[in-house]
Amino acid sequence: MQPFASGTSDDGCAFRLYISSGCNPCMRSIPLLPQRLMVAGRSLPRMIKELHVNRMIRCLLAALLVFCSLPVLAADPLPSWKSGPSKKAIVAFMDKVTTTGSPDFVAVNERIATFDNDGTLWAEQPLYFQGFFVFDRIRVLAPQHPEWQTTEPYKSALTGDMKDLAAAGEKGLAELIAATHSGMTTDEFNSVVTQWAATARHPKTKKLYTEMVYQPMLELLAYLRANGFKTYIVSGGGQEFMRPWTERVYGIPPEQVIGSGGELKYELRDGVPVLVKLPKVALVDDSVGKPVGIQRFIGRRPIFAFGNSDGDQQMLEWTTGGDGPRFAGLVHHTDGKREWAYDRKSRIGKLDKAWDEATQKGWTVVDMRKEWKTIYPPAR
Amino acid sequence: MQPFASGTSDDGCAFRLYISSGCNPCMRSIPLLPQRLMVAGRSLPRMIKELHVNRMIRCLLAALLVFCSLPVLAADPLPSWKSGPSKKAIVAFMDKVTTTGSPDFVAVNERIATFDNDGTLWAEQPLYFQGFFVFDRIRVLAPQHPEWQTTEPYKSALTGDMKDLAAAGEKGLAELIAATHSGMTTDEFNSVVTQWAATARHPKTKKLYTEMVYQPMLELLAYLRANGFKTYIVSGGGQEFMRPWTERVYGIPPEQVIGSGGELKYELRDGVPVLVKLPKVALVDDSVGKPVGIQRFIGRRPIFAFGNSDGDQQMLEWTTGGDGPRFAGLVHHTDGKREWAYDRKSRIGKLDKAWDEATQKGWTVVDMRKEWKTIYPPAR
Repeated sequence: MQPFASGTSDDGCAFRLYISSGCNPCMRSIPLLPQRLMVAGRSLPRMIKELHVNRMIRCLLAALLVFCSLPVLAADPLPSWKSGPSKKAIVAFMDKVTTTGSPDFVAVNERIATFDNDGTLWAEQPLYFQGFFVFDRIRVLAPQHPEWQTTEPYKSALTGDMKDLAAAGEKGLAELIAATHSGMTTDEFNSVVTQWAATARHPKTKKLYTEMVYQPMLELLAYLRANGFKTYIVSGGGQEFMRPWTERVYGIPPEQVIGSGGELKYELRDGVPVLVKLPKVALVDDSVGKPVGIQRFIGRRPIFAFGNSDGDQQMLEWTTGGDGPRFAGLVHHTDGKREWAYDRKSRIGKLDKAWDEATQKGWTVVDMRKEWKTIYPPAR
Repeated sequence: MQPFASGTSDDGCAFRLYISSGCNPCMRSIPLLPQRLMVAGRSLPRMIKELHVNRMIRCLLAALLVFCSLPVLAADPLPSWKSGPSKKAIVAFMDKVTTTGSPDFVAVNERIATFDNDGTLWAEQPLYFQGFFVFDRIRVLAPQHPEWQTTEPYKSALTGDMKDLAAAGEKGLAELIAATHSGMTTDEFNSVVTQWAATARHPKTKKLYTEMVYQPMLELLAYLRANGFKTYIVSGGGQEFMRPWTERVYGIPPEQVIGSGGELKYELRDGVPVLVKLPKVALVDDSVGKPVGIQRFIGRRPIFAFGNSDGDQQMLEWTTGGDGPRFAGLVHHTDGKREWAYDRKSRIGKLDKAWDEATQKGWTVVDMRKEWKTIYPPAR
């Protein structure tokens, strides 16, 4: 391990400073502290306990290290992951890319990790959660649109007739999305989503949708960030639908959320600038659109990516297609009891071709039932 | 000032820890350290000097603070700015938004600053530097296109006949851009730009283009980052044209570079994934396109923005249109001797309507000749 700094102090004492890990650049609201400080090969938190010095100095050091020491004391960064092939692969990758002097060492600014959202960070059954949002909004907006009672696809959306709705096809779905996702300013849409996320509940679990995130994946995001990674969402879902809550729920700030989105129009309304959401698609961030979104928004290739379906196949190919150490992971939904079990034949989150490629190329496939101790975070 | 942490150590000594500023989240390759550490209202670097403790402890603290103390010791964060209205406005704004407990305090994760590039961070005369890149590329590619010798707009681009080229208008320019910016992979284009930036020189100054960046603006970028800001480029220029060199030159990583850009296509070539640059515009990040680019890429409104021309007017409106403290700045090119002098009637970097709005709204307008001690960084 190379010292981060070395030299001689004013009174002739040589020192070497080692910092073995980066900070968490996402917790930007908390001043950043190095997570593990080593001086002359020894851990500082441990040294404090052993020092025979006056109380003031000990307090100084304790104060300095009060936050630094927490991650060091947490022995297992992935407590909700059972010891199995996936956890081992993740930890081995992390050790490899963060060990200074290792041939696989990756500079901190190149530590980019991208995550799909639906089915990877939160659940997606029996319908993408943004679909529930669409239906909820149609019901809220219906009184202003009496014609919806008799016009498809609104009529079926209001009665919940999934069969007629399916018959409306992609065109019908696009119409519902346009009716609920455009025609307002970005600030207005942000408020609508924020309120929905704080109140709407899943029909089966009765949890808030934002409570149906995967605890093991929250730990993985934190583990990556504690090791200097920038964590991104790269989702087929709506960018503006995710941004209002991803920082609070995942620790991922809006500027690291990439998703599908529509065109925007800048306007001055009585001198006040607004951005109006237009019913025209600007980026479909799914499948072949994921590497495109990654290049456009990040401009560097991730070295770590996680998905769960065929829509993530190209993101994983793009990630593993670069030089040096690469990690590609897929969440396999095998837990019909605690969550849902589905793969090759699922209408939502189909995992078929990407699974074959994972098998062929040795990507990590997480068996949710066998490898995750818990699914959702404990209720607050 | 609120303590960041307080408590009682194991042996009963009460402590309070103050951290008065954030870290520099852009220098991600260097492990992040808080820039100013205060304990019980006193600066730690100063305390070390005053402490009567054994050498080992002093070395420990010196090692810990070897980097933290540097920014504290640098008395003037903007040494190339003369003491004048612009410098005063910048420093006053910074003090306001970073003082804990102040009504104008802004949380670190909301500290977003956006900068135009051409004419704001580097020079833009007598032609946008990307224009020189286009002509240089046309010359390099000409042997593969013998038909260009007799076809407009290539013929004029090759002979340097600006009059005939101007006659080709926007359509001609778009054709030249398409011929030099598409039809290759993103990796190939990155290599081309990297090599050009390392070798091509400005016809008048004979400097590398990347040496024609403004020293006072480099200091401003560093000053913002030292105070917890994320610094972004929001330019009408090409996103992929800037990314290969902005991290090295400005300390701005690719993921914080927003610019105009074309559509991309994902392909597997012999099993190797590539992104091909298509001759179709995806975003014109200028004028009304700047707030759109900001929303799409960042998803939060900047609190600080700097431009130099009418193309930046909407970015400054959008920035200042939010609640709380806001800063809008314009570089006014008044220095015909050391740089160029131009404003209302310039073909490149026209400053007219934005100047009027700045006067009316009290935005900061930097008089380059009067307020900047130096223009370019010292030659290396």
